[in-house]
Amino acid sequence: MRNKVVKFGGSSLASAEQFKKVGEIIRSDETRRYVVPSAPGKRYSTDIKVTDMLYDCYRAASEGENIDKKMMRIQMRYQEIIEGLNLDLSLEEEFSVITENFKKQIGKDYAASRGEYLNGIIMANYLGYEFVDPAGYIFFGEDGILDAEYTQKCLSERLCGIERAVIPGFYGSDKKGNVKTFSRGGSDVTGSLVAKAVSADLYENWTDVSGFLVTDPRIVDNPEVISTITYKELRELAYMGATVLHEDAVFPLRKEGIPINIRNTNRPLDKGTMIVESTCNKPKYIITGIAGKKGFAAINIEKDMMNTEIGFGRRVMQVFEENGLSFEHVPSGIDTMTVFVHQDEFADKEQNVIAGLHRAVQPDHIDLEADLALIAVVGRGMRRNRGTAATIFTALAENHINIKMIDQGSSELNIIIGVENRDFEAATRTIYDAFVK
Amino acid sequence: MRNKVVKFGGSSLASAEQFKKVGEIIRSDETRRYVVPSAPGKRYSTDIKVTDMLYDCYRAASEGENIDKKMMRIQMRYQEIIEGLNLDLSLEEEFSVITENFKKQIGKDYAASRGEYLNGIIMANYLGYEFVDPAGYIFFGEDGILDAEYTQKCLSERLCGIERAVIPGFYGSDKKGNVKTFSRGGSDVTGSLVAKAVSADLYENWTDVSGFLVTDPRIVDNPEVISTITYKELRELAYMGATVLHEDAVFPLRKEGIPINIRNTNRPLDKGTMIVESTCNKPKYIITGIAGKKGFAAINIEKDMMNTEIGFGRRVMQVFEENGLSFEHVPSGIDTMTVFVHQDEFADKEQNVIAGLHRAVQPDHIDLEADLALIAVVGRGMRRNRGTAATIFTALAENHINIKMIDQGSSELNIIIGVENRDFEAATRTIYDAFVK
Repeated sequence: MRNKVVKFGGSSLASAEQFKKVGEIIRSDETRRYVVPSAPGKRYSTDIKVTDMLYDCYRAASEGENIDKKMMRIQMRYQEIIEGLNLDLSLEEEFSVITENFKKQIGKDYAASRGEYLNGIIMANYLGYEFVDPAGYIFFGEDGILDAEYTQKCLSERLCGIERAVIPGFYGSDKKGNVKTFSRGGSDVTGSLVAKAVSADLYENWTDVSGFLVTDPRIVDNPEVISTITYKELRELAYMGATVLHEDAVFPLRKEGIPINIRNTNRPLDKGTMIVESTCNKPKYIITGIAGKKGFAAINIEKDMMNTEIGFGRRVMQVFEENGLSFEHVPSGIDTMTVFVHQDEFADKEQNVIAGLHRAVQPDHIDLEADLALIAVVGRGMRRNRGTAATIFTALAENHINIKMIDQGSSELNIIIGVENRDFEAATRTIYDAFVK
Repeated sequence: MRNKVVKFGGSSLASAEQFKKVGEIIRSDETRRYVVPSAPGKRYSTDIKVTDMLYDCYRAASEGENIDKKMMRIQMRYQEIIEGLNLDLSLEEEFSVITENFKKQIGKDYAASRGEYLNGIIMANYLGYEFVDPAGYIFFGEDGILDAEYTQKCLSERLCGIERAVIPGFYGSDKKGNVKTFSRGGSDVTGSLVAKAVSADLYENWTDVSGFLVTDPRIVDNPEVISTITYKELRELAYMGATVLHEDAVFPLRKEGIPINIRNTNRPLDKGTMIVESTCNKPKYIITGIAGKKGFAAINIEKDMMNTEIGFGRRVMQVFEENGLSFEHVPSGIDTMTVFVHQDEFADKEQNVIAGLHRAVQPDHIDLEADLALIAVVGRGMRRNRGTAATIFTALAENHINIKMIDQGSSELNIIIGVENRDFEAATRTIYDAFVK
């Protein structure tokens, strides 16, 4: 029997109304057998997430405050959902245990995890699925890092015997039984562990957007949704600042070859974005996505005949390494080499780096340029298409945007363009319009 | 009094007819006070240069052959010039000394230098200028390298007292008085030393072309002449394979801020190419020149999250350094880094480099691509012009040329483009046509 692991984000589970949408989604496809819920998120923009309420309540307890009122408000959030769904379920007992544990201050991670835990209980009851508490199956080592192998073994043994289950996201426990959470957004990590444990055919991540957008909606109005993206493209866009999945969540699935489908709980007919290892699926546009970041500095090193000096590049790199700086790009001309770094990391070390470069390679001239932005234009479709660079640079020229740097390696999956910070938004819009409109 | 140093190449001095053109050029501008002649070059394409005849004659002498006939043929070349110019001059005495010295085998450098020496005597006689034998004023150290400081002192003292002089190119002597030559093309080195010694306002290099061409005439028919080029641009084009001045000749002049004018003896009205340190002179076209080379290989290294590894780039560079390889360009994407090297240097070391990279950075994947060409589009005008990249890539796309690499640093003086070897000529022509036609 085929199976899908479906994970729902906080906004998909913020209210009874949202739970009903989720219920319909799950029931409409009988292969959606393993459900990973988040804690209830915001119902409206000024609302408070349950997880934040829990943190606040736990802090109050630590300061010796009376937490009854705060706890009651949290309980009300769940009660509203239970009543809205007409469930025969009481969380009284759970809440008294949680309150006791808060007073005992058994751990901040425990506190935070209760949002998912309680939502999981409701979800299991609502769907008629078995509830599986991940505290017994997802384990962290003494170093605080997930014990992937042991988790895999335990989770797999537990889930393979169950046809349908709800496994709350975000947490597990250490070997002593203390609850430990992943970092924020970690419900996807749980989802990926479950998907791997049950050898899922597909991992569905249900959120409040209809997939990944071609570019940042704060820069471009209503950007198009990416229909299919490869892990590689995703990683590239994420690295350049695109807000996508929690990185730890993507890589385990990638390793197993399990595709991810980003879906919108509020628009279940939208196909969302498929994230895949590899695909013959041609992208709708030549480019898959555009992402970028501001705040880079460029160190431009000039020296006659540098290209004939074996070891020149290595010595330059070493200076940056010795100053604890990683570099982003190293475009080079003839007799010139430019190193792009994060400006905030570089600022304090600036003079050390310059002095180090003078010692290491005796340059003729060093020039610094700050306030630069890098934009990555990413797409597997670019490899087949000869006109990509032409389209980008024609559009930028027509919009009077000055290009500070161009970097395209032979992978041909992306072109990196450097512009001034102040041109960043205009450049992003220009490139988007050139390919998508 | 202002002064120019004028150097004439071999083809400008191959015959009496050419000498007459040279005489007219020098006499038409009284500031042309110091003349550096080469040896007589070819009069027609199958002709033999006097320098090559001298080498051959010297070799014959070393093998004990009778060199009278060979020496006579050389003497005839000069005699023809003397007679063609109606000079009251005999080289009989000179030739008997040279013949003696050849038999004594006093040195190959001595043999080679006689071409310039004798031409200098004729030139001085023809112009009525003083003859200065550089053997007494240009000195090499024991290491065989020019003793720049001492030469500067001696040459300057000697020439500053003379209003007009002819100083043959190509040679000087060691401290014991043995003649030593610069490497081929070294007459320009002599010219630059003279220019520096007399603090020339201008160094004119008279040849058989009307200046540097925007690109290789073997690829583009009758390319335009570059009217003004900076040392920096020149160096960039030379590095990428453009045939220009002997590098040792350019740098001393650059250091002194003496501009160079490349002129055509056969078309003295052409203004030729000015080589300058810096200029406000706007180039006629956005680009100054295009040069390129075939025969590069690209090593494409992929590794997830490489950008977050401090020292990654340095370790990659170190592997190339340890294998004695210099790299040309290192374009990088996200999770990918490509290293361009000379294919012929790389071929033997290929597997060592790959193994070294695996040890050094544990890449996910390494990919090699051979038979690539790099093209440099160079121009100080590009900095002011936003559309350069657009023009290049639009033209390449329209001509169906696939771009393998793009590299533009923040100096904005050049863009480096990688294409396949087989597309090299078409790409060069395409870029030329896009800017010059």
